Amino acid sequence: MHTLLLDSEDVGANAPMAAVVPAIEAAFGAYERGDAQMPAKSYIDLPQYNGDFRSMPAYLSVDGEAVETAGEAADWDAAGIKWVNVHTDNADRGLPTVLGTMIYSDPETAFPLAIMDGRELTMLRTGAAAAVATDHLAVTDATSLGIVGAGVQSYTQLEAIATVRSIEDVIVADQRPERVADFIDHFGDRFDVRSGEIGEAAACDVLSTVTPVESPIIDRADVGEQTHINAIGADAAGKHELSDQILLDATLVIDDYEQTTHSGEINVPYSTGTLTDGDIYGALGEIVVGKKAGRSSTDGITVFDSTGLAIQDVAAAHVVYTEANEADNGTAFDLLGLADA
Amino acid sequence: MHTLLLDSEDVGANAPMAAVVPAIEAAFGAYERGDAQMPAKSYIDLPQYNGDFRSMPAYLSVDGEAVETAGEAADWDAAGIKWVNVHTDNADRGLPTVLGTMIYSDPETAFPLAIMDGRELTMLRTGAAAAVATDHLAVTDATSLGIVGAGVQSYTQLEAIATVRSIEDVIVADQRPERVADFIDHFGDRFDVRSGEIGEAAACDVLSTVTPVESPIIDRADVGEQTHINAIGADAAGKHELSDQILLDATLVIDDYEQTTHSGEINVPYSTGTLTDGDIYGALGEIVVGKKAGRSSTDGITVFDSTGLAIQDVAAAHVVYTEANEADNGTAFDLLGLADA
Repeated sequence: MHTLLLDSEDVGANAPMAAVVPAIEAAFGAYERGDAQMPAKSYIDLPQYNGDFRSMPAYLSVDGEAVETAGEAADWDAAGIKWVNVHTDNADRGLPTVLGTMIYSDPETAFPLAIMDGRELTMLRTGAAAAVATDHLAVTDATSLGIVGAGVQSYTQLEAIATVRSIEDVIVADQRPERVADFIDHFGDRFDVRSGEIGEAAACDVLSTVTPVESPIIDRADVGEQTHINAIGADAAGKHELSDQILLDATLVIDDYEQTTHSGEINVPYSTGTLTDGDIYGALGEIVVGKKAGRSSTDGITVFDSTGLAIQDVAAAHVVYTEANEADNGTAFDLLGLADA
Repeated sequence: MHTLLLDSEDVGANAPMAAVVPAIEAAFGAYERGDAQMPAKSYIDLPQYNGDFRSMPAYLSVDGEAVETAGEAADWDAAGIKWVNVHTDNADRGLPTVLGTMIYSDPETAFPLAIMDGRELTMLRTGAAAAVATDHLAVTDATSLGIVGAGVQSYTQLEAIATVRSIEDVIVADQRPERVADFIDHFGDRFDVRSGEIGEAAACDVLSTVTPVESPIIDRADVGEQTHINAIGADAAGKHELSDQILLDATLVIDDYEQTTHSGEINVPYSTGTLTDGDIYGALGEIVVGKKAGRSSTDGITVFDSTGLAIQDVAAAHVVYTEANEADNGTAFDLLGLADA
């Protein structure tokens, strides 16, 4: 037995969103049904380096029958851990702020089936979660997508959301024109993509905010009457992209209670008591399994507060490993000296 | 930048005990001084597979000046995570019960400097911890070592302990004669190794017990008057190698309070109240930094209860990576697509 090494290119090449999005949906469902284990993220804080490490282990078991929308009838389970970080000084070194390494293991034997780039994987599973939320919460005839913040995480937003809605028009807002130009370059042949103000992006049928700001940049007045917002940027205490009034007026859906109240989009108003538990409609998993309804015709603004869960990483790794294995991609390596086992 | 892949052979070839033992000693010192971070192990339990996964992240910073005995004057720090498991049915599949993968990262940038076989690493750091304890707790003129249980973990006991005491005679006890024969084969040219009864092994100057038993196999009467015992085998609730009377009579040293009371050699008598906090002399780290004394001339039996700490894995990985890098060993791989960074 060998361990399959999958570098950033291999991960990207073996992660068709048409497979990743249903896998992420199945993961949210498994978590809600109690068919997943996700110990709390543990942190190592290194203030001397302006950085931290986070370990994100998880296991999930998916009942193919229960996943109506997943298009995958077979049962599967998966285990693994992502070792990830945030080192803000890395930008000065020409390195990404967030790196990551994923170990994907066979739950039955614990054999490390694959080791893969966790950075590429993080972008994929984050986009896919937004797509799952969009599928359940956006108007069914949504055709326009606003993107605020055209950094590395914005690309998978469009890639993933386009698998659940017929996106035609994309409006991109970013303070840095070169980022907008790169985004348009990348997607211009597939979508009608143009640069726009934040307010224009916020008026689209779907809006994804992907910035690290700590002071809201989306005004209540700019948001469309039935816009669905994926609030992606906030991943630490103090971060905050949407005005409080948006969060209070919206049907507010979270990925995980502990994580969102601590470090998600709602963390700031939650910490001050401006927003309380009563303002949270429910968790995405509850909607996926049908315990709570998705968008109804009378709903106005909806918001998905995404912080990113370890089960997403494991589910995305499951897709990447399966696809790469079938396509004979990646580099087989006998890490454990068990080639003959 | 590339990530260095180090398979089981690479790990073994780049882990001279003369370097690993001081690094492990430094790790215990750093932990005691508060210069380490070691979040609690988190578990994923999979009873359907008779298995579990454990994530063991850690960071440590070593002040070269403070490590008198380490022979390494320079400061160093290190971070990483070991993803390890216990799957008892693996034996039937021709696979090791315990596998493991270690990600070794640069604390300053979080770049994964190396990914290595965590199984080989676990054996090395476990032997090295026994050697650190032996160095502080065995009689200085110890020349005989008893080994009870000649499985995979027993080899590094002798390798490591021989770096801190002039071991000449080794007595090996195991129910399976082929294991004893393999052990004698392996070490016969360097030590006077012979097969013996458990009682003979227990009478040696130093004894390492490396079995998974749940009912004590070492009798109080067999233990030498000043024998130092490394109790290695117990790593889960219910496991227990030494008779309670040995533990009560000995100067009892532990690696970590939470882990030893929960799953170490003392866990059974501790859970019944036979052994209490008052019976614990101290932690190995306290002895390493000089807060508590090691063996005095009047001490009788000493016991080191070893459960295995994440800081040991990170410290051992530091040695392996450093040595492999200098020797140009291992396989460079561009996992993160940052070859040009």
